Amino acid sequence: MNDKIEKLIKEMTLEEKASLCSGGGFWNTKAIERLGIPQIIMTDGPNGVRYSENAFDSPNGFKSKPATCFPTASALASSWDVDLVYEVGRAIGEECRSMGIHILLAPGVNMKRTPLCGRNFEYYSEDPFLAGEMGAAFVDGVQSMGVGTSLKHFACNNEEYQRMSISSEVDERTLREIYLTAFEKVVKKSKPWTVMCSYNKINGTYASENKKLLTDILKNEWGFEGIVISDWGATNDRIKGLEAGLDLEMPGPSPMNDQKIVEAVKSGKLDEEKLNETVRRYLNVLFKALENDTRLDYDKEKHHELARRAAEESMVLLKNEGRLLPLNGRIKSIAVIGSAAKEPIYQGGGSAQVTPTKIDIPFDEIQKLSQGIDVIYAEGYKGFDIDENLIVDAVEKAEKSDVAVIFAGLVRGMESEGYDRRDMRLPQNQVELIKRVAAVQKNTILVLAAGSPVELDFIDNIPAILLSHLAGQASGSAVARVLFGKVSPCGKLAETYPVRLEDNPSYLNYPGEDGKVIYGERIYIGYRYYDKKHIKPRFPFGYGLSYTSFEYSNLRFSKDMMVDDDKLTVSFDIRNTGDIAAKEIAELYIKPLSSKVSRPEKELKGFKKVFLNPGESKTVSIEIEKRDLSYFDTSYGEFVAESGEYEILIGSSSQDIRLKGIIKYQNNKVYRKHLTADSPLKDWLEDEKGRALLMSVLPPQMKERLSNANSEAMWFIGSIPLRKMVMMSRGALTDDIIDRLVKQI
Amino acid sequence: MNDKIEKLIKEMTLEEKASLCSGGGFWNTKAIERLGIPQIIMTDGPNGVRYSENAFDSPNGFKSKPATCFPTASALASSWDVDLVYEVGRAIGEECRSMGIHILLAPGVNMKRTPLCGRNFEYYSEDPFLAGEMGAAFVDGVQSMGVGTSLKHFACNNEEYQRMSISSEVDERTLREIYLTAFEKVVKKSKPWTVMCSYNKINGTYASENKKLLTDILKNEWGFEGIVISDWGATNDRIKGLEAGLDLEMPGPSPMNDQKIVEAVKSGKLDEEKLNETVRRYLNVLFKALENDTRLDYDKEKHHELARRAAEESMVLLKNEGRLLPLNGRIKSIAVIGSAAKEPIYQGGGSAQVTPTKIDIPFDEIQKLSQGIDVIYAEGYKGFDIDENLIVDAVEKAEKSDVAVIFAGLVRGMESEGYDRRDMRLPQNQVELIKRVAAVQKNTILVLAAGSPVELDFIDNIPAILLSHLAGQASGSAVARVLFGKVSPCGKLAETYPVRLEDNPSYLNYPGEDGKVIYGERIYIGYRYYDKKHIKPRFPFGYGLSYTSFEYSNLRFSKDMMVDDDKLTVSFDIRNTGDIAAKEIAELYIKPLSSKVSRPEKELKGFKKVFLNPGESKTVSIEIEKRDLSYFDTSYGEFVAESGEYEILIGSSSQDIRLKGIIKYQNNKVYRKHLTADSPLKDWLEDEKGRALLMSVLPPQMKERLSNANSEAMWFIGSIPLRKMVMMSRGALTDDIIDRLVKQI
Repeated sequence: MNDKIEKLIKEMTLEEKASLCSGGGFWNTKAIERLGIPQIIMTDGPNGVRYSENAFDSPNGFKSKPATCFPTASALASSWDVDLVYEVGRAIGEECRSMGIHILLAPGVNMKRTPLCGRNFEYYSEDPFLAGEMGAAFVDGVQSMGVGTSLKHFACNNEEYQRMSISSEVDERTLREIYLTAFEKVVKKSKPWTVMCSYNKINGTYASENKKLLTDILKNEWGFEGIVISDWGATNDRIKGLEAGLDLEMPGPSPMNDQKIVEAVKSGKLDEEKLNETVRRYLNVLFKALENDTRLDYDKEKHHELARRAAEESMVLLKNEGRLLPLNGRIKSIAVIGSAAKEPIYQGGGSAQVTPTKIDIPFDEIQKLSQGIDVIYAEGYKGFDIDENLIVDAVEKAEKSDVAVIFAGLVRGMESEGYDRRDMRLPQNQVELIKRVAAVQKNTILVLAAGSPVELDFIDNIPAILLSHLAGQASGSAVARVLFGKVSPCGKLAETYPVRLEDNPSYLNYPGEDGKVIYGERIYIGYRYYDKKHIKPRFPFGYGLSYTSFEYSNLRFSKDMMVDDDKLTVSFDIRNTGDIAAKEIAELYIKPLSSKVSRPEKELKGFKKVFLNPGESKTVSIEIEKRDLSYFDTSYGEFVAESGEYEILIGSSSQDIRLKGIIKYQNNKVYRKHLTADSPLKDWLEDEKGRALLMSVLPPQMKERLSNANSEAMWFIGSIPLRKMVMMSRGALTDDIIDRLVKQI
Repeated sequence: MNDKIEKLIKEMTLEEKASLCSGGGFWNTKAIERLGIPQIIMTDGPNGVRYSENAFDSPNGFKSKPATCFPTASALASSWDVDLVYEVGRAIGEECRSMGIHILLAPGVNMKRTPLCGRNFEYYSEDPFLAGEMGAAFVDGVQSMGVGTSLKHFACNNEEYQRMSISSEVDERTLREIYLTAFEKVVKKSKPWTVMCSYNKINGTYASENKKLLTDILKNEWGFEGIVISDWGATNDRIKGLEAGLDLEMPGPSPMNDQKIVEAVKSGKLDEEKLNETVRRYLNVLFKALENDTRLDYDKEKHHELARRAAEESMVLLKNEGRLLPLNGRIKSIAVIGSAAKEPIYQGGGSAQVTPTKIDIPFDEIQKLSQGIDVIYAEGYKGFDIDENLIVDAVEKAEKSDVAVIFAGLVRGMESEGYDRRDMRLPQNQVELIKRVAAVQKNTILVLAAGSPVELDFIDNIPAILLSHLAGQASGSAVARVLFGKVSPCGKLAETYPVRLEDNPSYLNYPGEDGKVIYGERIYIGYRYYDKKHIKPRFPFGYGLSYTSFEYSNLRFSKDMMVDDDKLTVSFDIRNTGDIAAKEIAELYIKPLSSKVSRPEKELKGFKKVFLNPGESKTVSIEIEKRDLSYFDTSYGEFVAESGEYEILIGSSSQDIRLKGIIKYQNNKVYRKHLTADSPLKDWLEDEKGRALLMSVLPPQMKERLSNANSEAMWFIGSIPLRKMVMMSRGALTDDIIDRLVKQI
């Protein structure tokens, strides 16, 4: 293969090479007939195939071919089920094969920095570990079908506000620990064929021209072998882009930019070998795609079934007072309220919007399962204005029924690519409806469909809330099955539900101004913030109820002490102590007991979903490694696990820790800082060679003072830059001596 | 004078000029005998003169000559009394004259970003308006005696942690609106003779080498005519410093650096005119100092009286349930508890520490005023460890008295230059004592001495709390007079008292790591943060009780509409509705009702302290101007007041708003952005010329689309950089056209 590619590159003219640097159309790459190089096809998106051959000429591009609409990423992540996400990915891969798609433009693993980001439903989580695991499983699934993926949007594209130009201002540690970690995991573990760079700037440089991100980190540090594709229209300066590592400009064709590449090579501004590398990478992806270029069929009903199962696994039971759910035989009548019961809210807007193969209507599905129960419907709301007649009708029907089930949520248009939400509230007409219904019917169940958190300040007298997310075309049947207890809810929040928008960590620095959004909360996004600031959220990260109960016990470690690259297995037992078969998600968090830098109270570093029959007990084992203990040290430029003690926390949610234990870690690696005349004394003294050199030139009394300094004194003295010792030594040290030290080190 | 200076500069050798760039000793500048140029003397500090001639050879430098120890800056700011601060400044100026000091190294107007900063007691406030007013009054006072001041520590020196090397990472808007505003006001209004640059770096560059701060902003933009002095040891690279605008290196002598200056001029690296400018500035200050070089005497008793009055004006009554205070005739016995009643906590540590001329002991002062009342003493605590015997003794004495007055606070060593506090708590032995005493004595009064907020989670059953701050050598008598109602407390908090440390805005980004502290909360420090995040503080900014009550009424404006540089007078009436003569501080806040950038809920823009006899009413008038409505716009590089509505809020505290009214502002200035190919469409369209140029080249359908875009669509389209129109116009626009547009604009 390599030989074939090298041969092709040799045969190509400069113009032909340059032509491969932009697409051939909206969804396809360029063919070079002379050399027998065909085009390949890519299309959106993360929760199903959105393919429309004539996208360029369609005003909205949404008239796509029917495909299974699976739960969106924010829903799937709430399943915490990597096998399920793999299955969904594989099914979408199958559908790609059925339409001749070579590369699927998914998944998105951006972090949820603000609940308002219009595209949050396309992303997995506020936690990079969870998002990384989900993204990797999805890529593995799609690519197992011989279809490529495009990991997006790289990077720091965490809001839609001014996304074409805004600069995300992020410090290095935050970038590495929070915003790049999920990308890193997916790239290293699952080798996506392509990575899509985002529209925005990072620290002032467009993602599409960001050499540090595209080449230094992605390609060199992480070993990414595929191609970097521009988000559609994200290319800015094509030559800078190519130099930075942007391989393919989309959409195409872009003859002016192709020509610029030719000219840049001719004028010597661009090294032709740089262009060859891009062509080489592209041909590699192309030939991988062509290996699986045959059309396959898929079973629509089976995929719909999978979509339903995925929806069921994702639903999060937020409240269930007095065990109102599951609905049981004592109930004689149900009022199903809300237009979303007949026009389900099941996906978001923009490039991720799929034309479904079929849609399960919640009201119909409830009727199907309601043997002997009277089911009546009230529309409740329409659009965004309060309609008193609809409310009165709903209240009357709720009052005379045993139970009211209200379907509410962020209706079509409220969550979409291209713009953010303006606030975190449900439409006012829905809130009014919910309050009025709950006032007359104490058995009110709220089914909430939303791709991001909403404010829930009205729920005190609502005993049961089921969060269905945007759960795809089968969400209607999935909700019905959960309500009637055909299956126990088993999803958990992949994102904190704050009490109010202003509690959110990004609140002071969102959406940004004057072209910049400063990530001032740094590493403290999501639960890392609520934990650290002791702000009680409405529902915490990792939270979700079940129809049964679980007991955790017997925490044990494969060893007490981890050394260097050791791995350690954490084991514990979970027992289903209720009388309903169900799944539980166990979450493993790690809390460093000391650190020289500011660290979150705890961080998710493992999880497992297990199925348990009533009374059944299973042992869960999770392996942890050095990286799980680490923070990113900017002075060493790498992730560092400090020697010391770490608490292992096993929780049923981030706020419901069931088991705790302490492990020790010993790091024997010698870290050396780059020492200069500006380095503080502490850094010189901590470096073995630096200390020896410094001591060799200090006058006796200063030597003694530094040697005997207690930690309190060192806290002060240690911060003095070496150069200042010239002044402080009153003549004993000179600039020349300092310069010599710096040279010697 | 100018002629004389120019003549001297001409007569000086290069070496002589360079010699004037560093001090002659620890506290003095250099003399040049050949030219008849004498030395001048400077010394600390903000709350009294700390002068010790032989500082260099004294191990702690604290054996200073006796001087009046006035309340510290954090106390004085709580008086909100500019006339008082002027009087104190003038008195300190007098004391300088008595010791032959030419320049006092004060005041400090840094912002209180964290309650832990060891030097907070030396600073005024968390609000730049209040700090600026206080600093200006102090400078006016000192300089009215012909003694110079040194405005410090310029800039962003808001923690002592690693102060010699840490870099404060601050965005431009935050720097201008929060961290530079107080400096700007003092420089412009009161013309301090000198400004002292700080030890730390700002955005990576040492303050002592920061041309942007020292020259571009301070000297050029603000018109500062004096000299910039390095904080003692803050000089790093002397040549870079001189080029950046650092005039005088302290302490001196620094022959190596003087020599470097000579060499730099000789080698052509440094323009001699740059050196001449520094010498010119220095000689200007020198001759001003020599104008008032005669020794004056001062009246120690009068200054002590002033110190007492200043302490009284500063005290803040935080709680007074059931009007326990003032102590009245019904009381027969008082237990005075706490070692601070005999060893008062009245000043902080470090360079601000003064050797007082005398000290009023709280216990003695209480005895003096307690005619007929039994006063007994219990030590209560000693050091930092809980002493059960002392507590038991105190509890017994409290129980058998009518009232217990506990003196508590941050004892010596807890607040000092050079290091920060580790937490926001009182010593545990004091907390234990307070709880135990309050448990047996419901009439417990806590007198709290601290230069910064402390956690007060134990005060629920303490009916009365008087915050005495660090109120100087006469605080003992001032406290006694307030307790017995000789004077009503009339201070208000110049700093928010948060419930707990983690509520503080800097919490996630303090103290910083790897040499940087990121000001991630941006403009939201102090009450701006608690307001915006809706976090309830223990006691809000501007809060303080009185022994009487006040009624606010009749808010009126001199006009409804301000245009451009108009000024507007806000007037209202305050009436003393109680039966005790007292002072009230009225606070004026401004809230913009709309803005294109994120703005605080409200900002302090005026205040006035008025004395009112029982039943008396007075009219208060406060003038506001354009700057009071402004934010700093980074794209225009200046403060901008947006046209629109502003709410004027008159409060007795920041959380107790008594009167509200709306004014309109019209800004007719045309602001023009610098437009480039990277500028978003919105910026081009908002610029008259830019819009015309753009429209002249757009194809008809795009022109129409842009013209008709509603605000929602423009929110999205507007963020697209002009350059991208090439791609989006499908051939209608080219790079050449764009380049031409940019040239034309």
